[in-house]
Amino acid sequence: MRVNIPESDQERIVIVGGGFGGLMLAKKLAKCNYQVVLVDKRNYHQFQPLFYQVAMAGLEPSSISFPFRKAFQRFDNIYFRIGEVQNVEPEAKRINTDIGHINFDHLVLGYGAKTNFFGNKAFEEKAFTIKSTGQALNLRNTMLSDYEQAIIESDFEKRQWFLDIVIVGGGPTGVEVAGALSEMKKYILPKDYKELDAKEVDIYLLQGSDQLLQGMDPKHGNTAERYLKERGVIVKKNTRVVDYDGEFVITKDGGKIKAGKLIWAAGVTCSRMDGISEESFNSRNRILVDDFNKVKGYDDIYAIGDLACMMSEEYPYGHPQVAQPAIQQGKNLALNFKRRQQGKALKPFKYRDLGTMATIGRNKAVAEIGGFKFKGFFAWLIWLFVHLYALIGTRNKIVVFFNWIWNYMTYDQSLRLIINSNNEVKHEKPE
Amino acid sequence: MRVNIPESDQERIVIVGGGFGGLMLAKKLAKCNYQVVLVDKRNYHQFQPLFYQVAMAGLEPSSISFPFRKAFQRFDNIYFRIGEVQNVEPEAKRINTDIGHINFDHLVLGYGAKTNFFGNKAFEEKAFTIKSTGQALNLRNTMLSDYEQAIIESDFEKRQWFLDIVIVGGGPTGVEVAGALSEMKKYILPKDYKELDAKEVDIYLLQGSDQLLQGMDPKHGNTAERYLKERGVIVKKNTRVVDYDGEFVITKDGGKIKAGKLIWAAGVTCSRMDGISEESFNSRNRILVDDFNKVKGYDDIYAIGDLACMMSEEYPYGHPQVAQPAIQQGKNLALNFKRRQQGKALKPFKYRDLGTMATIGRNKAVAEIGGFKFKGFFAWLIWLFVHLYALIGTRNKIVVFFNWIWNYMTYDQSLRLIINSNNEVKHEKPE
Repeated sequence: MRVNIPESDQERIVIVGGGFGGLMLAKKLAKCNYQVVLVDKRNYHQFQPLFYQVAMAGLEPSSISFPFRKAFQRFDNIYFRIGEVQNVEPEAKRINTDIGHINFDHLVLGYGAKTNFFGNKAFEEKAFTIKSTGQALNLRNTMLSDYEQAIIESDFEKRQWFLDIVIVGGGPTGVEVAGALSEMKKYILPKDYKELDAKEVDIYLLQGSDQLLQGMDPKHGNTAERYLKERGVIVKKNTRVVDYDGEFVITKDGGKIKAGKLIWAAGVTCSRMDGISEESFNSRNRILVDDFNKVKGYDDIYAIGDLACMMSEEYPYGHPQVAQPAIQQGKNLALNFKRRQQGKALKPFKYRDLGTMATIGRNKAVAEIGGFKFKGFFAWLIWLFVHLYALIGTRNKIVVFFNWIWNYMTYDQSLRLIINSNNEVKHEKPE
Repeated sequence: MRVNIPESDQERIVIVGGGFGGLMLAKKLAKCNYQVVLVDKRNYHQFQPLFYQVAMAGLEPSSISFPFRKAFQRFDNIYFRIGEVQNVEPEAKRINTDIGHINFDHLVLGYGAKTNFFGNKAFEEKAFTIKSTGQALNLRNTMLSDYEQAIIESDFEKRQWFLDIVIVGGGPTGVEVAGALSEMKKYILPKDYKELDAKEVDIYLLQGSDQLLQGMDPKHGNTAERYLKERGVIVKKNTRVVDYDGEFVITKDGGKIKAGKLIWAAGVTCSRMDGISEESFNSRNRILVDDFNKVKGYDDIYAIGDLACMMSEEYPYGHPQVAQPAIQQGKNLALNFKRRQQGKALKPFKYRDLGTMATIGRNKAVAEIGGFKFKGFFAWLIWLFVHLYALIGTRNKIVVFFNWIWNYMTYDQSLRLIINSNNEVKHEKPE
């Protein structure tokens, strides 16, 4: 069945995925002479860099999400559909989704990356991840429920299962989660859970290599490590996890840590897409693209963002899988679609590295911007400002800013609510 | 197994349910010479009067919820436990819950009311209710998903199922939901769902009697009806629903309305509590209490709020099941617990009717306060002020106020996100 989208004389660009890249591309194509169809499995854009604050009860999902329809309200040439793409038929120029098929003149794949468990089923089943607001909420709910359970558990050993948390992966996400957890331990537990001894809560951050925040200057890794240790986080470098049975985390050196929660922040991979030739993917499932984000072997299929691997001298393994390359590729591709119609030469993509940063909590962060390196309070202010600025929607900016001020002044994330939506109503479309 | 709660020389008051009554009672007993244990199945207090705004995407659940632990942070004699009460053993002076048993010296039941389906299984299974934030979120998610589905449904008849909504019950909740839906139809649909013809969306409000807002002055019912009709709501009075097969709502007069969503706001009942004598309940499952909220037939068991039925000349069927009687009973009972220790005579409860009100949306409400009757813009301002004032927590007041201002200025509820928490991680306590 064909998905109901108005016919048009315009060429149709179908964008799969409304992350940083897809959303930017669609917006930049607003009011152009193309019909743009964005397909995403959610009805909102998510601001991934702040997922961890949702998990840590500092922000609501809605504050860092933005409904696609609202983003496109004013643009008559942009259409949105909720759908999951099943495969691509390059010859027929169409994609098949769970709501039907959609024809395209140009297809842009931007469905992003997913957690990489390196094939380990135990982690896949039992580890918590923070790659969507839903997952972040689930971690939050579980953590709060576990504190409640720990309070009524009189056996010390059993209590440890509820309280101790192991974070695997010392990149920005791992470091930020560890920092936020250590603040919860220091500021929240003694007030809200007086009957618990906060000292019983152990937070482990395990990193496979000998350096946190790999990819940044080693100095920053050391600074982050020092900050975390000052806050009581147990940082273990050169420590690889090999198994988790839901009770004990087993490390390669034979170590054994009792913990009910293992948070997996150890890397990402991509999903392959049925119908796209295997030769177009690299070994990490990224799609190989040329300097114009065109997929290797195709003329009318593009890939952007985390999914795309554009190799260059400076980035022999492709660009880092973060927001900036996606945003910039979205912009450049939109420009090229316009130039194409104007008969102008296309512009090859050139990545402008705006820097990297990570926060460890109150007043503490590390940042590298334009060759300059910052740490401490000033880096933290930069971090706040950059994230507020990048957030989509004025309302979101205000709400997040208010939350941050409030949390900063009160030493308190106020959102410690175990809320689940209730799906018990029978609601099935009649035949 | 006994629930782990510190032993104390103080007499123990166990409160079941942290609604308006239970929370007030606990707070008023702070720093008194009692050990207070509040048991609730959630870890937060919910502000029920605004559930409908959560369902209509105007507010986040967190803005109208307040964590119990945060409310009791400063009080060393108050303990909180998440638990569902299974039964009471009055002789043994203990309650049994899903987390174990808890002994009491005094027991206060305040577990509130639940939706009354009048024994009709079809409604129970397929009707949406708004008696918890979880249910409100579910209605929101379903409504937004249905709009998305309607857009890709080319058959008019089938589209009706996704779009049309029947609200059963013309009390304050029904009127407020109908008003909010009509605003969504008028202001949101034409912007966000341009491909839909908003005129296709039919909103029905069915009332069994010949008067909306029964219990208020008939003038107000008429005003509310006029407001709703001006906004396009189809108000049907003297119309009882008898069945719903998930596709058609059947009314007693033989009418048939196609609608995928039936919102049930037609009345409440209570649950009985195992272990409490049947004679202590009335026919609507409310617990009969004397002027001191003591349960008929018991010396150390009390009931407050929606659950309690305190009959008087003025209120021969008990007080209305709304916030004010619960709050006032909680206060009075706390006072009496204190007077008891001081050897003073107990004070019988006297209800002070502060008035009733309902809003129909932007600038429109009806209110009765201290014998005065208001309608229109002024009543709406009163409604806003009273609800803001009653909301618990400064942060919540600020956030709700900001949301209201924002929504008012932009004609937009911005929270149209279909978010579910993801519960797929295996997280089971080891044996």
